[in-house]
Amino acid sequence: MADSFAERFAAVRAALGPLVFGADPHGPVLRDWGLNDDADGLERFTDIVLGAAAGTVGLIKPQSAFYERHGWQGIRALARLVETARAEGLLVILDVKRGDVGSTNAAYAAAYLGDGAPLQADAITLSPYLGLGAMGEFVDRARLSAAGLFVVVRSSNPEGRAVQGAAAGGGLTVDQRLLADIGALNARLAPGVVGPVGAVVGAGRVDPPLDLAAANALLLAPGIGAQGAGPADVAATFAACPDRVLPSASRSLLAAGPDAGALRDAAARLNQELRALL
Amino acid sequence: MADSFAERFAAVRAALGPLVFGADPHGPVLRDWGLNDDADGLERFTDIVLGAAAGTVGLIKPQSAFYERHGWQGIRALARLVETARAEGLLVILDVKRGDVGSTNAAYAAAYLGDGAPLQADAITLSPYLGLGAMGEFVDRARLSAAGLFVVVRSSNPEGRAVQGAAAGGGLTVDQRLLADIGALNARLAPGVVGPVGAVVGAGRVDPPLDLAAANALLLAPGIGAQGAGPADVAATFAACPDRVLPSASRSLLAAGPDAGALRDAAARLNQELRALL
Repeated sequence: MADSFAERFAAVRAALGPLVFGADPHGPVLRDWGLNDDADGLERFTDIVLGAAAGTVGLIKPQSAFYERHGWQGIRALARLVETARAEGLLVILDVKRGDVGSTNAAYAAAYLGDGAPLQADAITLSPYLGLGAMGEFVDRARLSAAGLFVVVRSSNPEGRAVQGAAAGGGLTVDQRLLADIGALNARLAPGVVGPVGAVVGAGRVDPPLDLAAANALLLAPGIGAQGAGPADVAATFAACPDRVLPSASRSLLAAGPDAGALRDAAARLNQELRALL
Repeated sequence: MADSFAERFAAVRAALGPLVFGADPHGPVLRDWGLNDDADGLERFTDIVLGAAAGTVGLIKPQSAFYERHGWQGIRALARLVETARAEGLLVILDVKRGDVGSTNAAYAAAYLGDGAPLQADAITLSPYLGLGAMGEFVDRARLSAAGLFVVVRSSNPEGRAVQGAAAGGGLTVDQRLLADIGALNARLAPGVVGPVGAVVGAGRVDPPLDLAAANALLLAPGIGAQGAGPADVAATFAACPDRVLPSASRSLLAAGPDAGALRDAAARLNQELRALL
């Protein structure tokens, strides 16, 4: 059996640091880099990002939306990115935020998890409006392939509170309840160790509190730099379990491009800073 | 300015009936139809479904998961389905259930809505865990292109209650509050007429009640037949505004294939049945 995603994260964290490089080819980034805002520009973008990321960070997170924007040619570029990154030893978290009824989730799981998946990632993100209980197909396939899942629990944007801050019973908000349910699931799936079901938790907001350590989950913290939270905020928010946090930066890193050396330096610097704090 | 999605739905409903043909190439369906479970099988599947749907129903709804399962070749098949269906006069609802922070939603909107989108649909589905308030880019682009949006409000699966049934304040559950917010948005965007922001509402569950008529929204009711609800359930659930309901059937129709005539007969029969009830 392959090492679990949590074990593989621990290894790359020890070797290089916890930073996740967000490979998000926003239109403005492509323009700033002198690339065409088309599928060809995406291919060039991924080459530059891979050149900077490999050996500098342990993880890369492409956001699917920026590839879907270019249709099937964009997905072809994404597939090449995912495959090349994994071949170079990077862990790939594919940020797709999928989530549907069970039979549809089975198809999504087959698309992104396990041998034979056309875009096989090491981990994917999921969106839980249709319920954690509908995600059994994701959990089963993640376990079979030693992959990871990151369910959005508390997003970094304020508009998310309308749903995430609702009262889910027992004195818990929706996000608190979801994290507790993830913890119960991990305790059953992987007793005593960090489980396969992680959570996406924005670094900025701490109220109401989340019992982060109890979930025995990896915690993906997106948007470091661009969405308002810096390394010190990450350290403060996740003080209860700093070794389980995966801070992700995209636009704040990509601003250093397109020079691969400058990109690499920016990523190495941020990784060192996070390593010292977490 | 083109007719709004609501106006175009009203026209096809009057001509043919309200049924939405769910084009969901589940693995077992492909096998039952004697097709390969690969991108080539998908292309054959879409040809058969288009042959049966055009002239029989007014709307077709491909579920993206079943195309993503075959990587970029699957997305290429989906793009051809969407384009061909629209050229043949079908309205296409692309079931993608996307939803993220604002800047990512802008990329998703560019992928699926408006001229120049690589997979231009007439309407798409959205998932609101990150908030209706983060969907401004979808709303703006839908208005510019006279497209429709369907935000999941109440899903047809019981596991969804963990989030959708939480208490969102003012005595409303999350789904009730979301539908009220959609109604307020439609009243601002399209005063006095059916607005561009619709809702996905499962046909089976009626408790707690949803104020369906007040939202001035189209209502997509998925999974007729396969997920437990029949035409009579649709009529009962949506009695307050039967002319705004889009009942969608997939597996229960596809069971009549692969013969195009048998598929067409099954769709025509169900469309007639729904037309008589709604």
